[in-house]
This record gives sequence, structure tokens and C-alpha cells, in this order.
Amino acid sequence: MEKVSKPHAARMVFAKNLRQVRRLKEVSQEALALQAGLSRTYVSEVERGERNVSIDNMGLLADALGVKLKELLDPEMLKTL
Amino acid sequence: MEKVSKPHAARMVFAKNLRQVRRLKEVSQEALALQAGLSRTYVSEVERGERNVSIDNMGLLADALGVKLKELLDPEMLKTL
Repeated sequence: MEKVSKPHAARMVFAKNLRQVRRLKEVSQEALALQAGLSRTYVSEVERGERNVSIDNMGLLADALGVKLKELLDPEMLKTL
Repeated sequence: MEKVSKPHAARMVFAKNLRQVRRLKEVSQEALALQAGLSRTYVSEVERGERNVSIDNMGLLADALGVKLKELLDPEMLKTL
């Protein structure tokens, strides 16, 4: 059973990295959502840390941006770009 | 809206790495579940790739094992140990 949990710090790491990579690649939220098979609203909520996003959707988003999922979970990612 | 998705490859990467690190640290599923505030059944299902685990719970599991979440999502993790 997946209990209701307090947002983990990893949410904001993923949120910020996802937005940063998307912008670096000059991809709109709409285009990312389409490529990942998700809704734009959902992508927007994930980028604001409002979604307890699942591993499957995190994988789809990483694939859609052409980056490794582990990179989007690296708190230091911005320094490595 | 989080649509029903096909299991992503990242699930099995996380599942295998979680089990490997847990065993390396000689922590039982029960002890990991307790430390992470989750049920043993849930941890067992995550380790079998049967759960579309959320980022919050992934963060709790990584914290409970004292490893960085990005490491548990590294397909090459086993080679780096």
C-alpha cells in the first residue's frame, strides 16, 4: 500500500532538472508532453513539484528529452552542464 | 492525469539496485521497510518491479539505505560497487 507521504526533496530536484533540461533543449512543455505521451498540465505540475511522479512517467520524460533518468535525479546536475 | 503506463525499464534498474544495495548492507526487507516507513510487502513488490513506485517513496528508500537516489537509478551501479 502506497501511503500518503510528505513530499521528498527528490521531487524538487527532479522538477528543477526537468525544467532546466527542457529549456536548454528549447522544448516546450506541450512538445515534451506530446513526446512522453502525457498531458501538458501534468508536465507543468511535475515541473512545479506538485506531483508525486511515478518511476514509469519519470522514465518516459527522461526518454522524451534524451537524457538519462539518473541525471535528472542528480542535485548537482546543473553544475555538470 | 497519470495514465496507466507500460512498465518502464527504469523500474527493473531501481528494483535490482535496491535489492543489491540492501543485501550488500545486510539489511532485511523488514528492517528497510520499517526504516522507510513503508510496508514489507510494498518493499518486496518494488524489488520485484511490480510497483510503479513514486518519487517520494524512492527517496524514502534511498535515505533508509543511506545511498543517493540517482545511484539507485544507475543501470551501471553494480559495476561501480
